[in-house]
This record gives sequence, structure tokens and C-alpha cells, in this order.
Amino acid sequence: MKRITAGFLGCGGIGCGVWDLLQDMQGVIAHREGLYIEVKRILVRDKDKKREATIPRGLFTTDAAELLNDPEISVILEFMGGEQPALDYLCQALEAGKTVVTANKMAVALGWHRLFAAAQQGGGGLYFEAAVCGAIPVIRTLQNSLQGNRVEALMGIVNGTTNYILSQMAESGRDYDEVLAEAQALGLAEPDPASDVDGFDATYKLSVLSSLAFHARVPYGTIHREGIGGISALDVAYARDLGYTLKLLAIAKRDSDSIDVRVHPALVPDRHPLASVRGAFNAVFIHGSAAGDMMLYGRGAGSAPTAGAVVSDLVYAAKQSHHPIPSFEHREELPPHLRMEDNWRCAFYLRFEALNQPGVLGHIATRLGEHQVSIEAVVQRHTEGNERVPIVILTHQAREKDLRAALKALDPAVAQARGVLRIEGQQ
Amino acid sequence: MKRITAGFLGCGGIGCGVWDLLQDMQGVIAHREGLYIEVKRILVRDKDKKREATIPRGLFTTDAAELLNDPEISVILEFMGGEQPALDYLCQALEAGKTVVTANKMAVALGWHRLFAAAQQGGGGLYFEAAVCGAIPVIRTLQNSLQGNRVEALMGIVNGTTNYILSQMAESGRDYDEVLAEAQALGLAEPDPASDVDGFDATYKLSVLSSLAFHARVPYGTIHREGIGGISALDVAYARDLGYTLKLLAIAKRDSDSIDVRVHPALVPDRHPLASVRGAFNAVFIHGSAAGDMMLYGRGAGSAPTAGAVVSDLVYAAKQSHHPIPSFEHREELPPHLRMEDNWRCAFYLRFEALNQPGVLGHIATRLGEHQVSIEAVVQRHTEGNERVPIVILTHQAREKDLRAALKALDPAVAQARGVLRIEGQQ
Repeated sequence: MKRITAGFLGCGGIGCGVWDLLQDMQGVIAHREGLYIEVKRILVRDKDKKREATIPRGLFTTDAAELLNDPEISVILEFMGGEQPALDYLCQALEAGKTVVTANKMAVALGWHRLFAAAQQGGGGLYFEAAVCGAIPVIRTLQNSLQGNRVEALMGIVNGTTNYILSQMAESGRDYDEVLAEAQALGLAEPDPASDVDGFDATYKLSVLSSLAFHARVPYGTIHREGIGGISALDVAYARDLGYTLKLLAIAKRDSDSIDVRVHPALVPDRHPLASVRGAFNAVFIHGSAAGDMMLYGRGAGSAPTAGAVVSDLVYAAKQSHHPIPSFEHREELPPHLRMEDNWRCAFYLRFEALNQPGVLGHIATRLGEHQVSIEAVVQRHTEGNERVPIVILTHQAREKDLRAALKALDPAVAQARGVLRIEGQQ
Repeated sequence: MKRITAGFLGCGGIGCGVWDLLQDMQGVIAHREGLYIEVKRILVRDKDKKREATIPRGLFTTDAAELLNDPEISVILEFMGGEQPALDYLCQALEAGKTVVTANKMAVALGWHRLFAAAQQGGGGLYFEAAVCGAIPVIRTLQNSLQGNRVEALMGIVNGTTNYILSQMAESGRDYDEVLAEAQALGLAEPDPASDVDGFDATYKLSVLSSLAFHARVPYGTIHREGIGGISALDVAYARDLGYTLKLLAIAKRDSDSIDVRVHPALVPDRHPLASVRGAFNAVFIHGSAAGDMMLYGRGAGSAPTAGAVVSDLVYAAKQSHHPIPSFEHREELPPHLRMEDNWRCAFYLRFEALNQPGVLGHIATRLGEHQVSIEAVVQRHTEGNERVPIVILTHQAREKDLRAALKALDPAVAQARGVLRIEGQQ
């Protein structure tokens, strides 16, 4: 029986979940894996705080050094969240040769370079499956199951809160503000929802996912980010009638020499596997050069699913005699360039508010055509008597900057774009 | 740069796919992984056969000993398929200390015990991601990402041919025979389709998946198997109207002390993630005690997706200093018992052909009730004038043997069950 001694940094919901899971699974892990895991010390801010798990008070400490300087503790499990002081602690632990298992997406996304350097120096392992998409084994898949592939595209629904809100809007026809308020009342959205609804959370995760997918560093700050705050129930309903579902997507695409990396709401065709990912579930869709289309689906948050991922990492780490560290110094043959908004291509959904008179559709279509934006479909409902009417247009793939220029060239007295959404995942 | 020397057993579609992929990815794998892979020898039956890949003729041999006895060849990649002689060759290679990467589900499912014993003896690794569900990383996930879980249920769409046929039947309303003939004409089904449509292929895969999921040996022969041959277009259509999709499922379920393992057609609710797996795609849905619901989706066959899985296994194996071998001697605390048809519980879809007269529904409902089968929904369409009418009933969960007894107790002059389908995946 191999024995490992672990310390926890932090003991909130996930930490308590890991504690309970280790108690519950101890016998099973010993039988299956020949492994006994002891938790020796737990760093907390307040030893007397009431917690969800029953943990012997003697394990708690408020002094990180009691873990980081203890040579008997070989693995540090971190659930503090936030960039600091977690990142400093993790780097100290790695430099001291300890293995780190973390559920902290911010520390990994922002401290990537420091963490890998510290792991390389100390020789311990760095595991972060729980930091991105909870129970979904996407980190392990990108690291260990796609070596025969170039990843050409990755599209993820990586934030459960926004997916819940968008699913509710689609199913009930209600407005964003109303559904957000309900999600907050249910505890499914934070009182300050910015981290989720403005796309920050998804952007941290995409930084990690795209870096692994492309074997290249994709820093957090280079990712284009838009949230779901401006989404109108009208556009969700039109899109549904046209056979599309609105999702907040974390997108990373590559062609031979450049990559797009962006987080924004997008329409996906109803037959695309991402369209049926409902409620708080997460999913990551990957197109590999050999594998073709694949998708991993599951619970992206919650204390039990995240704790399961932490324990899997812990057991996996304990069985490695040599910890693999991805090295982004070794670039692939063509170093990728980041393609910015000006250059990427998308299909678009456009909703115009237009004068109800002859020639208006011609005006819009002409401006689009002049900017190399070609129309795939038009929906204009019969609405006699109204002064202004909605016109919905789906375009073929076009350069985003051409589309933006076409919209600027419209005569605002004739037609104005009220809803502009990118379309992803078309065949 | 680490160098490994490999040999191929077999060189059909998958072998040629692996050859091409290794040529294509050689530079990338060297950069990413610091690994150079040389293919030294390829066992074929006919050196002069025309092949899809351009391979130097000098690599071919018709003598397996030239690979198995060559100490320089450290990894054997096997794509011969079938039980023998593949299984004997693989055991020889493993006993000689070589690592084996195989795409052969039959050899793994039927030779499980011999292969693991040989690997344990020789100290090499045994990798078989490509043997089950092609590009879907389900083997690695069961082995390396669920250590913090007890798997409570696994349900897979693991055969692309039958999923294509059932998807076509649902979308076009056509009959089984017609769709099968079309699939055969398109090369999507074999001239002798029994391996797919009678569920043999799915049963091999389920033997492997359920053994890994439950950390227990689930021999091929213990799995209950039914194919899709008897499926009527009428039942597919009724099910669709009721909000269900018909799939050939490979099912493994566990409660504390017993397991169900079975392959058969089943209805899944349209909102279940498996319902939207269309065409030739595969997916494996897993419910873990910590992870909750998760699903892995992708291409389950085809030369490129399967070759991608082989190459991933090869690279993964090359980087292990110690190869993990699952040991099924170490059982979990409660050794599972196999629960047979008599004891498992399901909800059911029942279509009766019944006399068009008062009291008939009462007769059916009474017989069901006497056998502890409770009714969830009844559909009886208005059909004046016909002597016999269809009645469709959905039941709550019931013991299968009770359901069968209730159907036998019906007066055949009054009502006969014409369609009986299990329902899985209800919330």
C-alpha cells in the first residue's frame, strides 16, 4: 500500500466536498489503486467557522508555512480560489518539489508561466482538471488523448450560470433581466454576476483550454470577450424559429498559421451537439484532424463533481513516477498568430428595425453586398400599418470587419441593426 | 529525443490510417513530445495487395515471428481484428515484455484475462483505447478520470451502423429492411450485418467498458443481448410522438450489490443527451457518484478517428515509465452480482393490438396491475369502425419478469402485445 500525505489550502464548499469524498472513497481507493491518502493539515482563515464537513479541528491551521514547509506533505490540494495568495503558495509548494492539484482557474490562467516554471524546477506535478469544467475530463483528454491530432477547433459551453440563463430565456421566452434575477434568487447566479455574465469566468477557462489545444501559450488578456448582458428575448425567439440556439461560447479555432480565441454569445444550429446542452451543464466540442468531431459533456461546477475531479487528479498524480509538464517552448512547425476581430470570419444573424416601405430590403442588401457580405436567408413578416418593421437576415461566412463596415454604411433613417449575433458550428 | 521502434500486426484500413498519420504527425510529435517513432516491420497476409497507403514494400513480412522475436521492436500495434491469431500474437508480445496497442475489441473482450496476465508477466503496457468507440477517449476516462467515483450507470451508443439505421428510420419514417438495404448500398452496413444489427459488436464493447467501470470482470457471455432486427417503424413513430428516441444501448448499471449488463434497443427521452446522438456517431453516458451525469461523444469508427486513438495510445505508452495494469483481483468492498433479466427493473413502452370494444383497456390495465406494473400514460387514438385498434401504454418502473407475466396473462383474443420496448434514461 502506497501512502501519501496531503495538505489542503482552503476549506470552503469544494474543500469540504473533497474531505467527504476522501472519507467515503478511502476503502475503494485502497482496494482499486493500492493507495492510502492522509490529510495532515488544512489552511483556513478561521478555524472556528462552521463547515459543511465534519473535520477534526486539530487539522486546521491559519499559517500556510505549516503546510508549505512540511516535508512530509507531498501533495498540496488548493481550493482557495482567486489569484493571490493562492498563486504564491502554489509556486512555493512546487519549488519545494511538492505536487499540486488545484481547482483554481484564475491561478492557472494567470499564473501559467510561473506555475510551470516552478513545477519544472521542483520536479513535482501540476494537475488542474478541476479548475476547468469541473467533472468533465477535458484537461486529461487534451493532454493524453489527442496526441495523434492537430486540434482545429474547440468550442465550449464552460459557464453553467450563463447557460442556465440562456436555456431559461429560450424555453420560457422571458427577458434577460427577469431570468437573471430568478437565477440569483435560486443561488444559481452570484449577487454580483459580472464574473459569469460578462464572460470573465469563461475567458479564464478558454485561456487554459486553448493553450493546451494549440500547444501554445494563449494569455488571458489576448482573448476577445463579450458577455450575455445585451441579449434580447426577441433575438432568442427569432433564432429559435430559424433553428438555432443561443449559447455563450468559448471559441478557439486554428488554421495553418493563425488562431482565433474569443468568448461571446453565438447561435449554433439545433442539430449541433452543443445546442442540446441545457441548464447548468457544460460541454466542450473539439474538432481534431484525425478524431473529427467530438464532445465532452458534464457538470462544470458544484462541490461533488469538482471534488471528484480533484480526487481523480490526486490518485492519478500519486501513480506517476515522472510528472509530465507541457512545454510550450517546443512550438509546432508553424507558430500560430493570434487573429483579431478585424480578420476573423463568421456567419451572422442580423435583426434590423427598418422603415416599412418599398426599397428598404434593397438598401440593406446592397450595403451588405458592397462589403462582400452575402445573404443566406431573409425573414420579413407581414406587418401592415406599422411604421417600422423587423427584418432578420442570416449571412454566409464574412469577415467581421466587412460586416461592421456594411452596418455603418446603412442610412440610419432607413434601417438600423438592433441585433447582431455570430453563428458558429455550421456544417 | 526518445526513439521507439514499432511493428504493425495487420495493415488494412486502420493500419494504413496509422501509417499515414504517423508520417503526417512525425514532426509535430517530435516537437510536442520529444518522441521519434519508427515502424520497422508490418505483418501482412499478402505483400503484394494494393493498399490505401504508400508503404515501402521492404517493411512487409508474412512471418509474425519477425516482429514478435525482434528485441528492437518494443511496441506492437495490432489491427488484424478477430479473436485468433491476433490474441495469441498479442499474448506472445506481452510475455516478451513488449507494449501492445490494439484496436481489436474482440481480442480484448474475449482475451481479457490472458492479455492482462501476459502484461503483468512481461511488464509492458496494454492499451486499447482504439478498440472501443474509436476516437472517443472513454477507456482513458474510465481508467484515469473517475478514481473519485463509483460508476453507477453507463449507457452507450457504441455501434455506428445501428445508430445510423435507427436515426434514418426516425427521420424518414421508413421500415427497418429498407433502411438496412440502403445502409448496405452506401457501405455503412456490412453485406452480412449480423455483427452490428444483432448487437454482437456492442456486446464486445460493453464487456470491456463495464469491466473497467465496475472494476470487476464482466465476461462477454454474461451480457444479455438483443438486436434491432424486430424494430417496427410504427413503434419508432409512436415513440417519437411521445417524446422518445429509439437507440441500441449498451447498458451497465450498478446498485450496492448487483449489476445489470445488457445490450438492447431502448427508448430514451428526447431531452436525454443520448437522444441527440445521430447518424454514425457514438456516445457513452456515465453517471458517477461524484461526477453526476457526463457524456463522451464522437466518431466510433473510421480509419482516421481510430488511427488517431492508436497514435494517442502509442505516444501515451511511450511516455510511461511504469505501465498501469487494472487488477480485477482487488474487488471493491461489495463484490457485484450479475442481475439477470428476471430481476432487473425498467419502465416499458407497450403497443397492443386490441379488440375495438368496451372493457379492453380495463382488461389490459387489470392484468398489468395484478402483476405490480403501474401505468404512467395511455394513448388510444380514435379509430371508429376498425375491428382491432392500437393501444400504447407507458409504464412506470417494473420488474421485467412481472411485466412478462402480465403480458402472458392477457387473453390473446382481446389484446396482444405487438411492440415491447424498454425505456432508459428517465430522470
